[in-house]
Amino acid sequence: MTDSIFKIAVAKFGCIGAAPLLDLILDERADRKDLEVRGFTSGAKLDPDSCSVIVDQIIAYAPDLVVIVSPNAALPGATGARETLAEAKLPTITVSDGPSKKAFKGKDEEGKSINIVLDGQGFIILPSDPMIGARREFLDPTEMSIFNGDVIKVLAATGVIRYIQVAFDKVVSEIKQGKSPEMPMLVANAEDVVSQAGFTSPYAQAKAIAALSIAETVAKLTTKGCFMVKDAEKYIPLVAAGHEVLRAAVMLADELREMEKSGDTVRRTPHKPSGETLQKNKLAEKPA
Amino acid sequence: MTDSIFKIAVAKFGCIGAAPLLDLILDERADRKDLEVRGFTSGAKLDPDSCSVIVDQIIAYAPDLVVIVSPNAALPGATGARETLAEAKLPTITVSDGPSKKAFKGKDEEGKSINIVLDGQGFIILPSDPMIGARREFLDPTEMSIFNGDVIKVLAATGVIRYIQVAFDKVVSEIKQGKSPEMPMLVANAEDVVSQAGFTSPYAQAKAIAALSIAETVAKLTTKGCFMVKDAEKYIPLVAAGHEVLRAAVMLADELREMEKSGDTVRRTPHKPSGETLQKNKLAEKPA
Amino acid sequence: MTDSIFKIAVAKFGCIGAAPLLDLILDERADRKDLEVRGFTSGAKLDPDSCSVIVDQIIAYAPDLVVIVSPNAALPGATGARETLAEAKLPTITVSDGPSKKAFKGKDEEGKSINIVLDGQGFIILPSDPMIGARREFLDPTEMSIFNGDVIKVLAATGVIRYIQVAFDKVVSEIKQGKSPEMPMLVANAEDVVSQAGFTSPYAQAKAIAALSIAETVAKLTTKGCFMVKDAEKYIPLVAAGHEVLRAAVMLADELREMEKSGDTVRRTPHKPSGETLQKNKLAEKPA
Amino acid sequence: MTDSIFKIAVAKFGCIGAAPLLDLILDERADRKDLEVRGFTSGAKLDPDSCSVIVDQIIAYAPDLVVIVSPNAALPGATGARETLAEAKLPTITVSDGPSKKAFKGKDEEGKSINIVLDGQGFIILPSDPMIGARREFLDPTEMSIFNGDVIKVLAATGVIRYIQVAFDKVVSEIKQGKSPEMPMLVANAEDVVSQAGFTSPYAQAKAIAALSIAETVAKLTTKGCFMVKDAEKYIPLVAAGHEVLRAAVMLADELREMEKSGDTVRRTPHKPSGETLQKNKLAEKPA
Amino acid sequence: MTDSIFKIAVAKFGCIGAAPLLDLILDERADRKDLEVRGFTSGAKLDPDSCSVIVDQIIAYAPDLVVIVSPNAALPGATGARETLAEAKLPTITVSDGPSKKAFKGKDEEGKSINIVLDGQGFIILPSDPMIGARREFLDPTEMSIFNGDVIKVLAATGVIRYIQVAFDKVVSEIKQGKSPEMPMLVANAEDVVSQAGFTSPYAQAKAIAALSIAETVAKLTTKGCFMVKDAEKYIPLVAAGHEVLRAAVMLADELREMEKSGDTVRRTPHKPSGETLQKNKLAEKPA
Amino acid sequence: MTDSIFKIAVAKFGCIGAAPLLDLILDERADRKDLEVRGFTSGAKLDPDSCSVIVDQIIAYAPDLVVIVSPNAALPGATGARETLAEAKLPTITVSDGPSKKAFKGKDEEGKSINIVLDGQGFIILPSDPMIGARREFLDPTEMSIFNGDVIKVLAATGVIRYIQVAFDKVVSEIKQGKSPEMPMLVANAEDVVSQAGFTSPYAQAKAIAALSIAETVAKLTTKGCFMVKDAEKYIPLVAAGHEVLRAAVMLADELREMEKSGDTVRRTPHKPSGETLQKNKLAEKPA
Repeated sequence: MTDSIFKIAVAKFGCIGAAPLLDLILDERADRKDLEVRGFTSGAKLDPDSCSVIVDQIIAYAPDLVVIVSPNAALPGATGARETLAEAKLPTITVSDGPSKKAFKGKDEEGKSINIVLDGQGFIILPSDPMIGARREFLDPTEMSIFNGDVIKVLAATGVIRYIQVAFDKVVSEIKQGKSPEMPMLVANAEDVVSQAGFTSPYAQAKAIAALSIAETVAKLTTKGCFMVKDAEKYIPLVAAGHEVLRAAVMLADELREMEKSGDTVRRTPHKPSGETLQKNKLAEKPA
Repeated sequence: MTDSIFKIAVAKFGCIGAAPLLDLILDERADRKDLEVRGFTSGAKLDPDSCSVIVDQIIAYAPDLVVIVSPNAALPGATGARETLAEAKLPTITVSDGPSKKAFKGKDEEGKSINIVLDGQGFIILPSDPMIGARREFLDPTEMSIFNGDVIKVLAATGVIRYIQVAFDKVVSEIKQGKSPEMPMLVANAEDVVSQAGFTSPYAQAKAIAALSIAETVAKLTTKGCFMVKDAEKYIPLVAAGHEVLRAAVMLADELREMEKSGDTVRRTPHKPSGETLQKNKLAEKPA
Repeated sequence: MTDSIFKIAVAKFGCIGAAPLLDLILDERADRKDLEVRGFTSGAKLDPDSCSVIVDQIIAYAPDLVVIVSPNAALPGATGARETLAEAKLPTITVSDGPSKKAFKGKDEEGKSINIVLDGQGFIILPSDPMIGARREFLDPTEMSIFNGDVIKVLAATGVIRYIQVAFDKVVSEIKQGKSPEMPMLVANAEDVVSQAGFTSPYAQAKAIAALSIAETVAKLTTKGCFMVKDAEKYIPLVAAGHEVLRAAVMLADELREMEKSGDTVRRTPHKPSGETLQKNKLAEKPA
Repeated sequence: MTDSIFKIAVAKFGCIGAAPLLDLILDERADRKDLEVRGFTSGAKLDPDSCSVIVDQIIAYAPDLVVIVSPNAALPGATGARETLAEAKLPTITVSDGPSKKAFKGKDEEGKSINIVLDGQGFIILPSDPMIGARREFLDPTEMSIFNGDVIKVLAATGVIRYIQVAFDKVVSEIKQGKSPEMPMLVANAEDVVSQAGFTSPYAQAKAIAALSIAETVAKLTTKGCFMVKDAEKYIPLVAAGHEVLRAAVMLADELREMEKSGDTVRRTPHKPSGETLQKNKLAEKPA
Repeated sequence: MTDSIFKIAVAKFGCIGAAPLLDLILDERADRKDLEVRGFTSGAKLDPDSCSVIVDQIIAYAPDLVVIVSPNAALPGATGARETLAEAKLPTITVSDGPSKKAFKGKDEEGKSINIVLDGQGFIILPSDPMIGARREFLDPTEMSIFNGDVIKVLAATGVIRYIQVAFDKVVSEIKQGKSPEMPMLVANAEDVVSQAGFTSPYAQAKAIAALSIAETVAKLTTKGCFMVKDAEKYIPLVAAGHEVLRAAVMLADELREMEKSGDTVRRTPHKPSGETLQKNKLAEKPA
Repeated sequence: MTDSIFKIAVAKFGCIGAAPLLDLILDERADRKDLEVRGFTSGAKLDPDSCSVIVDQIIAYAPDLVVIVSPNAALPGATGARETLAEAKLPTITVSDGPSKKAFKGKDEEGKSINIVLDGQGFIILPSDPMIGARREFLDPTEMSIFNGDVIKVLAATGVIRYIQVAFDKVVSEIKQGKSPEMPMLVANAEDVVSQAGFTSPYAQAKAIAALSIAETVAKLTTKGCFMVKDAEKYIPLVAAGHEVLRAAVMLADELREMEKSGDTVRRTPHKPSGETLQKNKLAEKPA
């Protein structure tokens, strides 16, 4: 690959917190000359039919890199999509939440953890991207939006968005250089995320680990409330509690960002128009 | 139209705060039987070429309703898209921010305000959906995500998401019934939004108007910082201030939601699987 | 038993959040005529020798009821204490944290959950009473105190203290009436705790479940930081994060109490001098 | 005294905020090899009989140092305890609240302030450890626990716990070295406490003085509400106000701790297993 | 007196928190037809000469009622002013802070508390209107303004402003009706203030008592810091702590106002153009 | 002018947020030897008659400098006052809010912005000093006081008070030196204010710009609610929203002050007794 435009296709099947802005984080100011991003979504649906239509469109688009984002990527829709894309030999990264571990992580004969991926594919698992409280008594478009706004803030302030950016930047750069890219096979646990986030304050860092751990707690309540409890009197408090847990994570996320502001140490990693990633910490300084 | 699935195409050109979740707010729990949503995005780009590719895909999809969402819908890309879609006779609603007023609002010979729309089209203008602080020294993927998470929370908690939901629900319902729909031509000013939001507490309502008014203030700072000031020493504080203004709006948004929680009067308007909209205020009650 | 004074011995081996005030919650204003409480503690230590000395003192005191409180009651010290007290035929309740489940909960041949208790004994397991971040680089007397103050606030505001009070009140009442008491065998999971707490606001209730779920998250970080990670550079952020998680739970605990204050619905269950428990919700009203 | 274990007996008569954790602050991680702490409590009661039983147990234990903690140590129970312990020649420190000044502080013939202590005894008076709002309409086990959790947080974050630790560490060290110890005769006024607390931020220090001064204000309201006003309609608001005053002190305590976190200047003074006190300020550094 | 305009002269000698807006609280929307207010101030100065010039101007103005507001009204300037105004037979109310008690409150021969006033005069003593931290290292125009803004918020939200309004409204009404007015002789202690404030929420009321009690605490620190401690290293933390104490009172003041907003029970007592006072609690209702 | 006392007359016609303390900001600790300030107010009224009485008193006082402060200085009362004072050849500075721009800012023939001032006069326009929500259903003396307390806090914490101080200090100094003073002709827009405020933290600075921009937003709502909407059901939410907007500005103002405290970088600019202005940043240091 040389000077041509790099083409990324983002397939969104349903929604997790990382999904809504995923097609934007590589070109956050819409000034990259080297990149074209095209997003394809099936709305809230993630059944195989919805997914395969989108995969066909993506193959027609002929991108240099495909990103799939969906809840539980072990479900048939996403699984089928990965298979079709592997056959099409399109390099593909799946971004998904905790339940997707069963799609990508297994054990070898000796019981050692191994990655399960198709040729040319990778994954980024986000255990802190929590399941929503999807009960009709609780979740309407407004509550759904608040939840996703909150998840986005937690993912961004704690470093998960940067973690994804770093992984994407690396693959894009390798493909652009004509290399056979080393696809990411990552479980974004709190400590790894935070160690890459560039915090200066050790307490901001601790709060980030805390916020992500709290976000991981959400799913216990929402999963129980959505799938395991049948009585509305019981599941309504559970799903409502799940969203309150997330709101507590947002409070920490806000605190840690303010703490870094307080010391003028907010790490920023914007892209150049040519696609390189810059870095800076002091607000007044030029990124370099 | 009868029992068939209703098809909506959402075209996202670039990003405003209402965009990331717009393909989800009609089917917030992914359980609607009557609806199919397909999203098509050009990433951060909104030039005419990016837009027209997407419009072609949409026309191929043959939806019952098209929604375009983009910043400043008066720009050539969105304008061209609307024209092509009008020629294709696809009912189209544009959702855009304050600067798009010049596309849709004009004056007649007597100076009276009139709407400017193509046949079969409508618009929802969101003056409180603010421009981001798009300067490289300030905006990286993380800051971009925080900003959008914040905007989403403000739009949802104050009632803007419900305002859009109501408008969409009405058009979808009319088309489903085989009627010629009355397309929305709406400027979502704070008072109208809030009067539809279903607040019980008058102080929550006042805080919602306040939050939206503050959100409208953001763009003054970011627009100045992005387009009118050339010296980094001067524009960095401006764009940073813009995002601080938004964060103040989030504080009010959170307060007003907590105030309604405190009185157990949070309005919820979920969809039924058949597509009808339900309503409830007390957490324990069934939506009806 | 008749009109004589009821004697309770509280044995504290080491510290969990429920321990510091456990000898006070049955006589919160020191005006009960029917009750005598004696506390015996081994400071921070919980080895078998420290525990057995205390058990001897308790047997000498000849109480009507013994309460043991300690972290991980499956450890040898607490286990030995329970055995000696069972031999002495003193009714004994153990209050402990999550890891103590392995002492009290087992499975029968068919895999069904069963309780494991000695004759005349009971237990209250508090999964939300979290392990402290016991690393020398982090935990000094000041940090230890802050942590326990925070845990106490979470346990009290969410209803755990009331849950313990109810269980104790019941046993004391039964023994005072000369009955053979039904000893408590309770795992204080969030939903049970909250359903007994007497919340009027459903959102306060949801926040209480949330706060307890977050408190349960603490131990994952502190256990890992104390026992599984050896490198100070790595365990310091983990134990610090554990305490930040707890602080987020405190924020919710404070919020929910304020929410009940806001509606003048704070449940209060004071004791009468004769030992009966009263109840009230409105601040101005007499307990009855 | 040489290599043998140093034995401390802590006698708790009733409860003040400093009491619940007092047996833990010298061995905060339960890893001291040189120290044995034994606590003896009379629950909420502090009458002479309850106290003398405990004193007998303590004398039987033969500790190297006795610590008494109680509200108003000028009452007969605590006074008798001090006398018996003096006769038994056990070095004794009393930790008590503001009203205990009348037990320990007097004037000589010329009107100069003098200390009133028995041979070999000392005292630490904590004016900021406030009386609880002990009215049945208000104080139940839950409210009692919240109050004490709040007091503990204020005492710890402002430096009172460290102030006590320093005094105890000094006496223990002197006795361990075989010296005749200089017993503490201290009134822990806000400025002295704060000057020993090791704050780096002058505003954190100011907030600590403020929090302690506010905590001192509590007792005016609760004393009036408990002892001087007889009409429930009047005393309920007073005791409720007392606890609100304390909550305001907690807000400052939390703020000042966060402020020191923000600058990575939280002073920590953990004990070594050998009993020496270490010191550190930066989270990442080793205590030394 | 009949239909003529009622004339009030407000003399401000120096500043207390109640002073800056005192000439506005009887005509808060500038629409009263029956009232003329004229203010005369000596800036920050309150020496006898400054005061007497102002008194001369007031006498020339021939008002129906004089209000003096100053710190410590027992000082010579204010005392002289009261004497001159008494000679001039102008009804005069002094509004001052805690130290002014020595001017207005004495004891009779039997030790009973009596009021000390000149003929036709009254007073309102505000113990919760605190002395500022007037040290050059700390107090500049900005800090002075923040302090006074904070005091105003505390006085208003807790009911002190309403307490003054009620007293003034009563005197004005009596004089307007040609009666010999009963001049107020009031010490605005927290409980009296709050019982007149019209709170619906008992917890808002408790918070108001708390906020006022905390505000009373400020002066202990600032008085000590300004007059009793000479070493800058020592008095700077004291005056800074005084302002932090006030800020904590503001937090409670804000909380209690929000609590009343939450229940839609904010009491409002606006004036009619004719001077009568109206009352209302629900935001949407007409005052009556 | 030499060693004599410098005399300033402050005329307050009605009230804006900058008014209540304007006579105090040049002598914040009442210890200046070189200065005499005399304030003259017409209460809430600002009609021509009220104003001209005050102007006569001021001319009689023969000050070295006159300061007029009023809302909308383009109204007849203030305009007449300026004319009379110009005739009297008294140097006069008007401090007013945004609407006063039409009094002082015009355009020359070429459309360039020019200042419109009488000889020897100047102005300071404060666009962030917002109009109050002056509706009887909403504004009573208590709400009026809270609003002004809030405005004062915003003006002070963001630097507007310092901005005014600097302008006044300069004019006073020039007149004292016998110079013909350069009268200020200033529009205190957010960026200018903040650049003079002496912030060290760039995020505190951004928050200050944000707070002032939000404060400017208030007037849109209150002006509409007071003058343009006639229906109480509609104007009550608007004026209530206006005050909520201001409260959001206060939150930012408080945050930015705390942020500067956190870094020990709070700029202070106290006056010396001789009238010179000192400066300092660290709390412990002497102003110089």
